[in-house]
Amino acid sequence: MAATVQLDSAELDSSVAYREALDRELNRFFREQCARARDYDESYVRLWDALRAVSHGGKRIRSRLVHETYAALGGRNVGHATAVGLAFELLHTAFVIHDDIIDGDVLRRGQLNVTGQFLSHAQRDGLDYATARHWAESSALIGGDLMLTHAQRYLAVASIPEPVRRQLLDLFEYALYVTAAGEQADVSYSVRSPEELTLDNVITMATHKTAVYSFGAPLRAGVLLAGGSADLAALVGDFGLMLGTAYQLRDDFLGLYGDSAVTGKSVLSDLRGGKNTPLMIFARGTDAWPLVEEMRHREDVDSSELAAVRTALDECGARAFLERLEAEHVERADLLTLGEDMPAALGELLRSTMRSLAARAA
Amino acid sequence: MAATVQLDSAELDSSVAYREALDRELNRFFREQCARARDYDESYVRLWDALRAVSHGGKRIRSRLVHETYAALGGRNVGHATAVGLAFELLHTAFVIHDDIIDGDVLRRGQLNVTGQFLSHAQRDGLDYATARHWAESSALIGGDLMLTHAQRYLAVASIPEPVRRQLLDLFEYALYVTAAGEQADVSYSVRSPEELTLDNVITMATHKTAVYSFGAPLRAGVLLAGGSADLAALVGDFGLMLGTAYQLRDDFLGLYGDSAVTGKSVLSDLRGGKNTPLMIFARGTDAWPLVEEMRHREDVDSSELAAVRTALDECGARAFLERLEAEHVERADLLTLGEDMPAALGELLRSTMRSLAARAA
Repeated sequence: MAATVQLDSAELDSSVAYREALDRELNRFFREQCARARDYDESYVRLWDALRAVSHGGKRIRSRLVHETYAALGGRNVGHATAVGLAFELLHTAFVIHDDIIDGDVLRRGQLNVTGQFLSHAQRDGLDYATARHWAESSALIGGDLMLTHAQRYLAVASIPEPVRRQLLDLFEYALYVTAAGEQADVSYSVRSPEELTLDNVITMATHKTAVYSFGAPLRAGVLLAGGSADLAALVGDFGLMLGTAYQLRDDFLGLYGDSAVTGKSVLSDLRGGKNTPLMIFARGTDAWPLVEEMRHREDVDSSELAAVRTALDECGARAFLERLEAEHVERADLLTLGEDMPAALGELLRSTMRSLAARAA
Repeated sequence: MAATVQLDSAELDSSVAYREALDRELNRFFREQCARARDYDESYVRLWDALRAVSHGGKRIRSRLVHETYAALGGRNVGHATAVGLAFELLHTAFVIHDDIIDGDVLRRGQLNVTGQFLSHAQRDGLDYATARHWAESSALIGGDLMLTHAQRYLAVASIPEPVRRQLLDLFEYALYVTAAGEQADVSYSVRSPEELTLDNVITMATHKTAVYSFGAPLRAGVLLAGGSADLAALVGDFGLMLGTAYQLRDDFLGLYGDSAVTGKSVLSDLRGGKNTPLMIFARGTDAWPLVEEMRHREDVDSSELAAVRTALDECGARAFLERLEAEHVERADLLTLGEDMPAALGELLRSTMRSLAARAA
């Protein structure tokens, strides 16, 4: 009747084995869901196919963080680590799908997202754009609900002994609560006058919207699953928030200064989308603003105009400011790993994770 | 950190006591969530206030069905019954919120829904309509996600012993899966040519979209919670689907023939909304159709025109057909309560529930 959960009971011996176990369970899950869907309307099969497509690929950062922390503290149960990793991966899928509806996006990492897949199908069928779009977004809304339920379900039905299972469910709820708060703030900032927004507002919003569920919570979950203390989980969670915020600041940086051949995303989209990144908030009070503001409202910006925007942001100190802010977060995260309450192996792991994620070029 | 759950451990002695326990927990839940929200953007407090407002009132049919079945089988644990009842009530809230986004509604039972509350606030603040609407619907989308997570959470963290807790989580997942399928079919039917739709399509769609999570699953949950067998739970669930379908057919009937002073809803909205109810599907192949079709596309229909539509539907046999269809479902539900595997007290309860819900005027 209900979806089954079949997790490996073998021992976990490497990151590669973990990633394979995770992919195996994800494949099994979607195979089963798609098969069940055949008893319903054909559009439901299409929906599950689309959900399967968007759940594959990606960097799997969240499950990787769960596993690495868990393994560093001696955790070896692959079934438990897979259940917790998938909870965060499917939560991410759910957030991405619903966030894309809010942003009106049809692409994600250059691929059609759930809305995009339905829209493309509807337009091939000759539906008018407004009807097609409504159908596509409604389908994505339903799809996100399915992913959200299955994310929490992986924890709810896991064979993880109490009180850890309950701690993980509480952590999941906390992550969802804070992410919803960040998303709500993001949506609300877009209807307020940008002049009202402070740097603190936008950094806090990004921390709530992304850093908690993507970094803080998965790292905490790994500690809890390994039987670590609440204090250690909190410490590692704080590290995760610093890492997550640094990651986000790097994203903002790459959004304007990155090499699109490496990042795979246009360096113009953040600028044209009028996103209130910390870079923009800083620039707003400087001489660079008139030029930046003009480019933000332009339909198209050529490469020499982009170069001019970059130069203006360099000269007004916005770039240096952003880089300093990122470095500060990296430094604070580093400090958290060096305290005497941090097991040495875990501290080393966290610092290496930080280096691989924060100083990236893509 | 995470939301707490505090359920009464007293004995359950009456429907009134149950309803009070349910309301007490719901009040406590929203009080706590609204208080937590104060640590975030002010719009998040507004969102939780709106969620609280839409979660109050209503008939509480789903939790009532859980409790009555549970009590009829000797169940007495008020905390368990409250947790399961709230899971279904919050699931309903989540579905209603997301369904209203899909339908573009701003009212529910004559009150502003979540979208409506945000829209009204935004317009008072002088936002243009499109921006206000987008903000309002985005907020409702986030709000539905919160309700959906908390619905499942009430089961996930309940102190209900295994294997019953797991059976309830499986039932929840099943209800969500089928409801999503029904919603997806509903959304998809609206982009297909109405001529393609059969009576069976629209009745099955309504059963999936509403009867499973509103009737079949809560009744099954009551049986499972009381320690009843899987066979009895399935039998009671089948009864629930018949009841739910009869309930929906009555809704369609009242949508055209009801007294709006009693139902509290316009008798024109179903007609004007162009809803593909079984009544309309039947009428489509008859002499009544040209008149009905004309009225469906009219902006306004006066009382003499409504009377003409009713007469045409009477004369073509659509009304009699709908009443016969409803009676058949009631009869099949009745038969299910009379088998030898049905405990006498439970059978009697189900028949009385059927009489109170199916033959209603509002």
